[in-house]
Amino acid sequence: MTPDNYPSKVLREAVEAISSLPGVGSRSALRLALHLLRQPSENIHHFADSVAALADDVHYCSECNMIADGDLCGICADRSRDHKQICVVESVRDVMSIEATGQYRGVYHVLGGIISPIDGVGPSDLSIGSLVQRLKDSQEPVEVILALSGDVEGETTAFYIYRQIEGLAAKVTTLARGLGFGDDLEYADSLTLGRSIVNRQPFSV
Amino acid sequence: MTPDNYPSKVLREAVEAISSLPGVGSRSALRLALHLLRQPSENIHHFADSVAALADDVHYCSECNMIADGDLCGICADRSRDHKQICVVESVRDVMSIEATGQYRGVYHVLGGIISPIDGVGPSDLSIGSLVQRLKDSQEPVEVILALSGDVEGETTAFYIYRQIEGLAAKVTTLARGLGFGDDLEYADSLTLGRSIVNRQPFSV
Repeated sequence: MTPDNYPSKVLREAVEAISSLPGVGSRSALRLALHLLRQPSENIHHFADSVAALADDVHYCSECNMIADGDLCGICADRSRDHKQICVVESVRDVMSIEATGQYRGVYHVLGGIISPIDGVGPSDLSIGSLVQRLKDSQEPVEVILALSGDVEGETTAFYIYRQIEGLAAKVTTLARGLGFGDDLEYADSLTLGRSIVNRQPFSV
Repeated sequence: MTPDNYPSKVLREAVEAISSLPGVGSRSALRLALHLLRQPSENIHHFADSVAALADDVHYCSECNMIADGDLCGICADRSRDHKQICVVESVRDVMSIEATGQYRGVYHVLGGIISPIDGVGPSDLSIGSLVQRLKDSQEPVEVILALSGDVEGETTAFYIYRQIEGLAAKVTTLARGLGFGDDLEYADSLTLGRSIVNRQPFSV
């Protein structure tokens, strides 16, 4: 139903750009473009500048590959964090999710993706070499926590990294798998439920 | 669940800008910002420039107030369209919707809003004066089609405009109201259904 005959080339280009975002169809993009068009000029420029800054002003931490405003990210620069624990994650978003739990005081290593032959992503596309180097450079024994998703790609990547860092890391751990809080036993898949029983924990109150 | 501690000021500002769009929450905005961040720098700039162009390069048709690339919109500039029919609509979007039907060969007048005391929009905020002037300037008798929505604001605006153009327009019409194609009689509201019966049309095959 979306009309293809845009009244203005400028509008059409804005709609095309906005609808290139994932999950934004051309109808929503038109709605958003017309919304922007109704805003004062300085608001539109502020929006455009904020987005352009993503291309120009975002740096990547030289230590962990996390996005940062300078050479080191806030976490790596923080000497109060435990630099003997490195949590290996797929993406920036995973760091933010783990940080939001408030349960982790170590540092991170952001792979920038996951091994996925179907998407053409191999080990050399990820920052695995820099992780190996980080472990070689470390003066102290380091625990590496492989915090990757529980699907085939995640497991494959974890296994590949394990092979690379075997002997370099003092300890390699992975996230606990089990029933989530609030999960119903009846609807849990049997693999997860099985793992929950095998790795059962002391009951605490 | 969205973490508030953004790893980068630039990312936080982009997320804030994106989440200012209607219907985009901070989680979606973060997802979109991280998607953009993964794109090549020139794609991000293309996106930002396309949006900035909305502020700088969009013109409004001096005749009908529609957005345009130059002084006149494509419709007003098109001499093959019937300039003796002016369809009055609330917004740019309405023009695009009517154009998409392919059923109308006249021209438009975009009000730029609708009379709504609750939103602080009065007649003087809309391009009603320029409609009156257009009718006064016209050499030929003009039909004005009031194509406004069927709610209270739409009816109020239509009535106000009718009072202003009475005597200036050769004919003032409004959109037909009735059962939509594919509508179920059972679920039609009685006002619409009543209007459908009163304004019944000759049956044609």
